[in-house]
Amino acid sequence: MVNSVSNMEEYILLIEGKDRPGLIFEITGIIFRFGLNIISNHEYVDPENTTFFMRSEFVGRLDEQVFLTQLRDSLNSGFQVSLRKKEKKKIIVFASREHHCLADLLIREEFDTLNAEIVCIISNFSDLASLATMFNKQYHYIAHANLTRAEHERIILEIVDQARPDYLVLAKYMRIFTAEFVNQYRGRIVNIHHSFLPAFIGREPYEQAYDRGVKMIGATAHFVNEKLDEGPIIVQEVIRINHKYTIDDMRQAGKDAEVLALHKALKYVFEDRVFISGKKTILFN
Amino acid sequence: MVNSVSNMEEYILLIEGKDRPGLIFEITGIIFRFGLNIISNHEYVDPENTTFFMRSEFVGRLDEQVFLTQLRDSLNSGFQVSLRKKEKKKIIVFASREHHCLADLLIREEFDTLNAEIVCIISNFSDLASLATMFNKQYHYIAHANLTRAEHERIILEIVDQARPDYLVLAKYMRIFTAEFVNQYRGRIVNIHHSFLPAFIGREPYEQAYDRGVKMIGATAHFVNEKLDEGPIIVQEVIRINHKYTIDDMRQAGKDAEVLALHKALKYVFEDRVFISGKKTILFN
Amino acid sequence: MVNSVSNMEEYILLIEGKDRPGLIFEITGIIFRFGLNIISNHEYVDPENTTFFMRSEFVGRLDEQVFLTQLRDSLNSGFQVSLRKKEKKKIIVFASREHHCLADLLIREEFDTLNAEIVCIISNFSDLASLATMFNKQYHYIAHANLTRAEHERIILEIVDQARPDYLVLAKYMRIFTAEFVNQYRGRIVNIHHSFLPAFIGREPYEQAYDRGVKMIGATAHFVNEKLDEGPIIVQEVIRINHKYTIDDMRQAGKDAEVLALHKALKYVFEDRVFISGKKTILFN
Amino acid sequence: MVNSVSNMEEYILLIEGKDRPGLIFEITGIIFRFGLNIISNHEYVDPENTTFFMRSEFVGRLDEQVFLTQLRDSLNSGFQVSLRKKEKKKIIVFASREHHCLADLLIREEFDTLNAEIVCIISNFSDLASLATMFNKQYHYIAHANLTRAEHERIILEIVDQARPDYLVLAKYMRIFTAEFVNQYRGRIVNIHHSFLPAFIGREPYEQAYDRGVKMIGATAHFVNEKLDEGPIIVQEVIRINHKYTIDDMRQAGKDAEVLALHKALKYVFEDRVFISGKKTILFN
Repeated sequence: MVNSVSNMEEYILLIEGKDRPGLIFEITGIIFRFGLNIISNHEYVDPENTTFFMRSEFVGRLDEQVFLTQLRDSLNSGFQVSLRKKEKKKIIVFASREHHCLADLLIREEFDTLNAEIVCIISNFSDLASLATMFNKQYHYIAHANLTRAEHERIILEIVDQARPDYLVLAKYMRIFTAEFVNQYRGRIVNIHHSFLPAFIGREPYEQAYDRGVKMIGATAHFVNEKLDEGPIIVQEVIRINHKYTIDDMRQAGKDAEVLALHKALKYVFEDRVFISGKKTILFN
Repeated sequence: MVNSVSNMEEYILLIEGKDRPGLIFEITGIIFRFGLNIISNHEYVDPENTTFFMRSEFVGRLDEQVFLTQLRDSLNSGFQVSLRKKEKKKIIVFASREHHCLADLLIREEFDTLNAEIVCIISNFSDLASLATMFNKQYHYIAHANLTRAEHERIILEIVDQARPDYLVLAKYMRIFTAEFVNQYRGRIVNIHHSFLPAFIGREPYEQAYDRGVKMIGATAHFVNEKLDEGPIIVQEVIRINHKYTIDDMRQAGKDAEVLALHKALKYVFEDRVFISGKKTILFN
Repeated sequence: MVNSVSNMEEYILLIEGKDRPGLIFEITGIIFRFGLNIISNHEYVDPENTTFFMRSEFVGRLDEQVFLTQLRDSLNSGFQVSLRKKEKKKIIVFASREHHCLADLLIREEFDTLNAEIVCIISNFSDLASLATMFNKQYHYIAHANLTRAEHERIILEIVDQARPDYLVLAKYMRIFTAEFVNQYRGRIVNIHHSFLPAFIGREPYEQAYDRGVKMIGATAHFVNEKLDEGPIIVQEVIRINHKYTIDDMRQAGKDAEVLALHKALKYVFEDRVFISGKKTILFN
Repeated sequence: MVNSVSNMEEYILLIEGKDRPGLIFEITGIIFRFGLNIISNHEYVDPENTTFFMRSEFVGRLDEQVFLTQLRDSLNSGFQVSLRKKEKKKIIVFASREHHCLADLLIREEFDTLNAEIVCIISNFSDLASLATMFNKQYHYIAHANLTRAEHERIILEIVDQARPDYLVLAKYMRIFTAEFVNQYRGRIVNIHHSFLPAFIGREPYEQAYDRGVKMIGATAHFVNEKLDEGPIIVQEVIRINHKYTIDDMRQAGKDAEVLALHKALKYVFEDRVFISGKKTILFN
């Protein structure tokens, strides 16, 4: 259907590039001349790097190729322009042994409040296979024992590449990806971290938190980059605790915070509301 | 200095009117042609009444009259257009006997974090006169005893009209204004309500809340309209409580929530981030 | 096994009655003389009705009948004394058409974080039968069409009475019980309310909330009494929203708040941490 | 008035020591035999070190010496027993250049909601002297230039020792005390930390937070020990922020969180609700 005019559709236009005067005028002018009706518009210029970010939601009939060509000609080669239809994302969910985030996503998909289709589940453990079965989902159990990290990732990549997902969601996947893997899906891997970053990085976070006597337990949903625990933060949540919490109670509070932070972050990501600017996210909500 | 070009200034442009295609393009086009540099831009169309709201922050040298004339010509008579310099608002604070909100505002003004100048304080009680004196503020004690509501308001209006404030802040002012008074300062009176509206309207809210056994105490900052407790809500805050809270403890929690809600609401209002759309507020933050 | 000494067990002792000096001393004396080891102890006297509430958690070997007899003799007939082993509660979950609370409870039971066994699900609609099936749960679909309220309840009561549950959990069960039904399970029915009580009681709460332009959406978990929406509150939760929320967005935020409030309330209830004192709850956490 | 019986008074009894069976029975027995009426009672055993903590609030006429002697005889030398009347604490507030926490405490004292008397203010800067004057408070400006840390502290200690305060409150006092100083007032120095500990310890926390792109800003009120930033945490607060926050906006959000955390912590401390157990606090609220 190349170059043919679409039916009435809801579109999301994402633009980023070096800021210069008149950008909004240029872009909205093209949208206007194509007869599109803007529903909402967000722009932001990151003062650190003077990068311009724009998200525009509009409705109309559109020859997408012609529209994109005009936009790209008007802007320039340094700009990233992406036109998306408002539709469900395709995702692969990675998990290890803890069920809580995966279960929440499965329930949300089942009742159509996730705004995404879970193509399959990949795990380095077999623990959650039965959960996947309950929801009639394919579960790839890929044990990492006796495999090098590269070999393990190669098997995973085969599945992932073939499925062509929009996003990879690490729902308590307790294994680190190599920089090569991350690069291949840069900006498209969302992780939930067991902590209110940057606190309690590393092993046994709840033991650390218990030992420190904290009064709140947090969780952080973030994009993954090559440095573990340092990707751009999307959403953070905290839950108040008190001195009576055992390490297990803290762990359960942490899980509740993780579920909250992850599905809130995914809501924004799947609605194309999140840009990455250097080490941070711009969140148009 | 009519029609003369200003020095480099920071401006805020506020526009509201009936939505139509191309509005953002039109408006940003004029901003662009005047050589102004947009720092941030917010637009929103209220789906209920298809009213378009826009707030644009920009920097530049500007012949304000010419600019406004062009804008108004391009839009039409149904539009409200307001161009403001980024500067402190002038406010009058109204209080009765409770100190907490007034004291918070005085401290914030004193240390220059209020973004407003408190021109004077008006009260129907003398209790807080000494607080005003500590901060070297004029305190108009206008008792309402032996006065009709109209007479009382007439005295107040004389002071208010002469001071020409941008906003009237009711910081626990426990007296209701007439519709005439409200109309004269429509959209410019901010009140703090002792409750998480619409719950516990009316007398003795903490007795009601205690009786009902609630687990959270709230406060609501809102614009005042002619119907008491029903003006557009700007900010709501809640504080968790437990069964050990006495009515007095609840009252104190309520005060803490009121202080939070009021200064957060005023921050948005004084930065020109709040539009009123029917019974609601649009908050560009 | 009447009157025989148990193995080492974890017990929870719940006592309520008219306060008088020395109660704690009396009660802890008996606990001490039975050689039991107190792990945690909570007492509270409601100042409104001078009722004494105590929850004591201890470990030991115990002839339960002898222990209870001594306690009841030492206190008096006006006291309610209940000795429970720390074990999972048996519950029946009621639902109508909305899945979110039921699904959350099923997942928590499945992964053993609910602290309860869901004996069966009762619904006046068939919508959630497939969800029940996924979790291998019995689902009683009892349509109310063509039945009087009394007839409908009689069918339900047969199932409930036979199952002998500790609690009935109304997980978005959109039908009102009669006073007779409530009385039979008084203090043992937990409901989740679509609102931050006492606001937005009645029909179409989100339409009301949208219309009012609120900035937070709440949910209230409470015990059910004969007056709808007025039973003692256990937990309240709120979620911040903004002007961009449609009624559907508010409804989804409400559902997220409901899930949070309900499972938090149930955690306290199932751990025997909640007393009812008049129109309020005492929550020992 | 040694050994004479008091009038009807409200007392708070604080006990800590090695846990053993029957402690509550022993202690409440003595309270009972002295004819005292318990209003509230909290006990907790820290599972890490099996230390027993108890806070009992009661009313009655009491020969304090006889009561304490009986209690100490019944317990043993390893126990710390403290009997306090319910009365305002005497405090010294330390500040440097930032006003927000000091101003909040001064307002609360002025309107009698602090539950403490501010004996005087000590600062290593002169900036806040005028604030102190407004509230008619003595302000000791003790510059640290040209003084060794020991010399500086010696001057401070003279003032402090003479005033005999119950607590020292570091309300943004940006100077570290020596271990000797801390030891002398161990468990009686409360600090407000510019961060959600343990994140962003050290210099320029808001620059660090900005750089990391966090979505929440926190503050931690804690007791001071000899290791900076590592004393037992009393209260933590967070405030949500977004990508539009500049470093200055984050700093202001941080200040608002600090004010909240500090006065909440002080409320608990001044009501004798906080015990220190190793590196943590037990908070009976």
